[in-house]
Amino acid sequence: MNSSYTQRYALPKCIAISDYLFHRLNQLNIHTIFGLSGEFSMPLLDKLYNIPNLRWAGNSNELNAAYAADGYSRLKGLGCLITTFGVGELSAINGVAGSYAEHVGILHIVGMPPTSAQTKQLLLHHTLGNGDFTVFHRIASDVACYTTLIIDSELCADEVDKCIKKAWIEQRPVYMGMPVNQVNLPIESARLNTPLDLQLHKNDPDVEKEVISRILSFIYKSQNPAIIVDACTSRQNLIEETKELCNRLKFPVFVTPMGKGTVNETDPQFGGVFTGSISAPEVREVVDFADFIIVIGCMLSEFSTSTFHFQYKTKNCALLYSTSVKLKNATYPDLSIKLLLQKILANLDESKLSYQPSEQPSMMVPRPYPAGNVLLRQEWVWNEISHWFQPGDIIITETGASAFGVNQTRFPVNTLGISQALWGSVGYTMGACLGAEFAVQEINKDKFPATKHRVILFMGDGAFQLTVQELSTIVKWGLTPYIFVMNNQGYSVDRFLHHRSDASYYDIQPWNYLGLLRVFGCTNYETKKIITVGEFRSMISDPNFATNDKIRMIEIMLPPRDVPQALLDRWVVEKEQSKQVQEENENSSAVNTPTPEFQPLLKKNQVGY
Amino acid sequence: MNSSYTQRYALPKCIAISDYLFHRLNQLNIHTIFGLSGEFSMPLLDKLYNIPNLRWAGNSNELNAAYAADGYSRLKGLGCLITTFGVGELSAINGVAGSYAEHVGILHIVGMPPTSAQTKQLLLHHTLGNGDFTVFHRIASDVACYTTLIIDSELCADEVDKCIKKAWIEQRPVYMGMPVNQVNLPIESARLNTPLDLQLHKNDPDVEKEVISRILSFIYKSQNPAIIVDACTSRQNLIEETKELCNRLKFPVFVTPMGKGTVNETDPQFGGVFTGSISAPEVREVVDFADFIIVIGCMLSEFSTSTFHFQYKTKNCALLYSTSVKLKNATYPDLSIKLLLQKILANLDESKLSYQPSEQPSMMVPRPYPAGNVLLRQEWVWNEISHWFQPGDIIITETGASAFGVNQTRFPVNTLGISQALWGSVGYTMGACLGAEFAVQEINKDKFPATKHRVILFMGDGAFQLTVQELSTIVKWGLTPYIFVMNNQGYSVDRFLHHRSDASYYDIQPWNYLGLLRVFGCTNYETKKIITVGEFRSMISDPNFATNDKIRMIEIMLPPRDVPQALLDRWVVEKEQSKQVQEENENSSAVNTPTPEFQPLLKKNQVGY
Ligand SMILES: Cc1ncc(C[n+]2csc(CCOP(=O)(O)OP(=O)(O)O)c2C)c(N)n1
Ligand SMILES: Cc1ncc(C[n+]2csc(CCOP(=O)(O)OP(=O)(O)O)c2C)c(N)n1
Repeated sequence: MNSSYTQRYALPKCIAISDYLFHRLNQLNIHTIFGLSGEFSMPLLDKLYNIPNLRWAGNSNELNAAYAADGYSRLKGLGCLITTFGVGELSAINGVAGSYAEHVGILHIVGMPPTSAQTKQLLLHHTLGNGDFTVFHRIASDVACYTTLIIDSELCADEVDKCIKKAWIEQRPVYMGMPVNQVNLPIESARLNTPLDLQLHKNDPDVEKEVISRILSFIYKSQNPAIIVDACTSRQNLIEETKELCNRLKFPVFVTPMGKGTVNETDPQFGGVFTGSISAPEVREVVDFADFIIVIGCMLSEFSTSTFHFQYKTKNCALLYSTSVKLKNATYPDLSIKLLLQKILANLDESKLSYQPSEQPSMMVPRPYPAGNVLLRQEWVWNEISHWFQPGDIIITETGASAFGVNQTRFPVNTLGISQALWGSVGYTMGACLGAEFAVQEINKDKFPATKHRVILFMGDGAFQLTVQELSTIVKWGLTPYIFVMNNQGYSVDRFLHHRSDASYYDIQPWNYLGLLRVFGCTNYETKKIITVGEFRSMISDPNFATNDKIRMIEIMLPPRDVPQALLDRWVVEKEQSKQVQEENENSSAVNTPTPEFQPLLKKNQVGY
Repeated sequence: MNSSYTQRYALPKCIAISDYLFHRLNQLNIHTIFGLSGEFSMPLLDKLYNIPNLRWAGNSNELNAAYAADGYSRLKGLGCLITTFGVGELSAINGVAGSYAEHVGILHIVGMPPTSAQTKQLLLHHTLGNGDFTVFHRIASDVACYTTLIIDSELCADEVDKCIKKAWIEQRPVYMGMPVNQVNLPIESARLNTPLDLQLHKNDPDVEKEVISRILSFIYKSQNPAIIVDACTSRQNLIEETKELCNRLKFPVFVTPMGKGTVNETDPQFGGVFTGSISAPEVREVVDFADFIIVIGCMLSEFSTSTFHFQYKTKNCALLYSTSVKLKNATYPDLSIKLLLQKILANLDESKLSYQPSEQPSMMVPRPYPAGNVLLRQEWVWNEISHWFQPGDIIITETGASAFGVNQTRFPVNTLGISQALWGSVGYTMGACLGAEFAVQEINKDKFPATKHRVILFMGDGAFQLTVQELSTIVKWGLTPYIFVMNNQGYSVDRFLHHRSDASYYDIQPWNYLGLLRVFGCTNYETKKIITVGEFRSMISDPNFATNDKIRMIEIMLPPRDVPQALLDRWVVEKEQSKQVQEENENSSAVNTPTPEFQPLLKKNQVGY
């Protein structure tokens, strides 16, 4: 039992650097590696088979592999991606950039040509033909927190440790080039008996003290406070500290779209999702009029998409980023937030609070009961699906209408939400779903009693087409997610944003989506095409359907010009306001307000239900 | 008839810069634009619908769109790709890098956030969240011959002209960022009445004279000469000049894998494909013992892949690159090769030639007649398919076994070969096939009498999975290529290179490939699964099959461990040699020679036929 790692795995004294690398990952419970093979990475991949707990996902293309590593990392703290020089790594870069933007820990290992070829600047396959072997490394450095090449035989083990630590702690991509001839550099296996030191730096006590006392004084004074929980709460593993802080302060708690799934949404303190300019009125009422806001795991304090603007109105904000704090106008760099939160909790004296707790209005819209033969609409689907969610679910929503719709749902306890709200690369979620399924499989196995997490994906039909082949990898591994294809015949968010045009660039080829599982070789599956409210209702009330014992693909038929109501309502108001401003300023006519086309649908909707 | 462009299109005096851009493309007969829409590119795309001759391909993802623009450009001289900021452009970059490496003219337009957001460093959707709007532009500059942003209202029309000219003349990608608020910058339409000046620079007469006289003296003196036709012959539009030079010199003519399809392979002068170390003995005999080699449209004089090394043995080489000449050891930069070749032809005096013409041995292997029930093998398929090719075919072969197999075929006159021999990004050809089909459709329409070009794609099953969704775009447009899926149950080239391992990273999920067309909504198609020699023979002798009146998908079943014979034979020799060298040097044991596993198949093959 107390045997050392090298004893348990019966390792020889001397092992290859690539063995070492994979053992290090194994020690962090990273058991699935993503990517595609290539001539410069095969000798590295061979080593992976030396470790019993490790598997090679074998993705269908590199972009999907990067998305999958990202989804996996969001559950397990680190995702490892292996691609081949040039063609492979560049295919993946959009996915890696997404991990960078959204603070997700990724170790990206690139199998490179032998160092001799690089030194001689040979004209090789997968180069630009100009003898420049540094270009891809240079490109990668723009979307990585650290990059390196494994070339020095003395330092390579330190380097491997450093890469893994950085990706893990900073929650960003790290790029590691591994020349094919370096794969066997010898390393003393005994190093593995000292676990990687993943401890956070102690904070400077002086700085910490100042920050804590200032934050506490805001906390004590505030009469209309709000806690906002953002993306990095799960990435930096602050969930327990956040829970305790919320419980003890009793402040109204909100999540950002990226933070959704990190707090208990059934708690009476929970006020809903803060989506800036398109938040529900109950949410804006509290957040916009707060005299103090503490944002935990803050990713961005301001943020714009074409459909909403996200900004805190009060100047009294404590923004707890991953590794720094901004308090009103003061910035405090180099702080571990986890340690800081622990100290705040240790020093917090609830008796000093000025705030009088009050229950937040329920976010849950009363269940509407339209007739069974009414056709489905976004608004109804998103409200209704909440009732089907279970504790422990992993809920993945794609950029497009789903990312907005999900903000109308309420998550049960211990639910994780995955979406790419900042980077917003369409197609991401098919890969992320694969990665999350792998992670869940491993978590279920590690835990006794096994907690059954369901992975539930909502993906627009347009998005689905970008990355469809990763469904095949899901099938290959016999994974069992729920895949809801929201079929509104094209890019509806684009239609909505830009609906004046008679253009066709948001139309897509109509597929027989449900036929794909069979074509991809799946034998044990269930498919459903859901058109009416009645069909939807009977699906979500069927207990068999609720058990994730096989892959299930559900095509939800929706009108092409329908978007979630919340989005539409708010957006109309927004645009009207900005139109007024613009007209005052310059009498411009270039503002897009929804034309009457959208209005009839809106009305019908309201009448129908 | 003699009306000006603006009259013909009834253009107002003042048009938007984006209209101007699309009219310029229209003037160069570029009628299809590739890409995916996004919020920052939609206002630009709207303009495209103002021009009757222009269509928006609407690809399934951006990487495929870049591949398609590349395939289109290889036939039409320029491909235009439009993507959206960050997510779109990075998804495409591997395809653009391929165009850069392989000298293909691409205009990549990226729809960007408004300049005001960039100046204020707003935290926007599709950014890395750090306010840096320059990062993607910077990344693009590594794989472009020119990059720019459309921001200056005075210079923007000049800038658009410059971008198009550069992409066209230099045959490399150009990157043009178009902020969404700049789309309507006003331009005088009258500029369009002056065609773009795409004339090549006149060469410096002194330099030109020296080069011509030196080349001619080599030409006259040589007794064992060879002409090698490489990739840039088609890219730089040197086909006519090359044809005349070959006709008049009567030298033995070879093509590189990337040059295949640019000379008449039925001519007795034609000696075959020079693939360096794995060339056929008849080819090496001439090329390796030549006392003078002239390489037209040279891309790389030396080049290595994992399966072959490509190098000219003689020191007496005239390498005619795109814009420079290397003659023995002297380099002459800044030369237009087209003008140079024309001058060489003007000065050439055939009476001074020392070379005695002799016919090259026929490359065509005698047709073997195995029994009809013999299972298919690579070797036989590639020899046999030559008999089915027709003049005017566009033959596209994917990285992997197909790229080698095709070198064993002989192309009829006026055939174009498309493959990515240098960059070698697997999956490329599905996009390239779409692009080539669009181009062919336009060429067929422009020409009277219409020449019917068939587009024929050979793609490994592994490669097919990387980019499968682009098949849907082919279906959407009712295009009619032949798609041969070479099903050997995975990555056979990898199996071959690295066959010692018992790893599974070259296995792939078995799909019902032929079921895909229906799932993608295709109604008019033909599919075939070909397992035996007899089935193959009856397919290629069926005249109905030879007419490209509908999309045809043919699954060719091949053994997992089978590769084209030529590749295998040579490779064994090569590796044996390098093994001997290595053993002499260092007594190393790390060389991969095919294990006995491959041998039985080889023997069976030879016996079977
Ligand atoms: C890689 C990438 N390409 C393009 C875009 C632009 N874009 C944003 S939403 C969208 C359409 C998504 O359509 P669909 O998945 O059907 O969702 P819907 O809008 O119908 O909900 C596109 C193409 C993007 N965000 N990412
Ligand atoms: C984008 C990209 N990823 C990975 C590779 C490495 N690679 C080279 S060949 C190959 C396998 C191709 O398999 P298949 O298309 O089935 O062809 P076969 O080898 O069976 O002929 C792979 C993955 C690559 N060249 N490009």
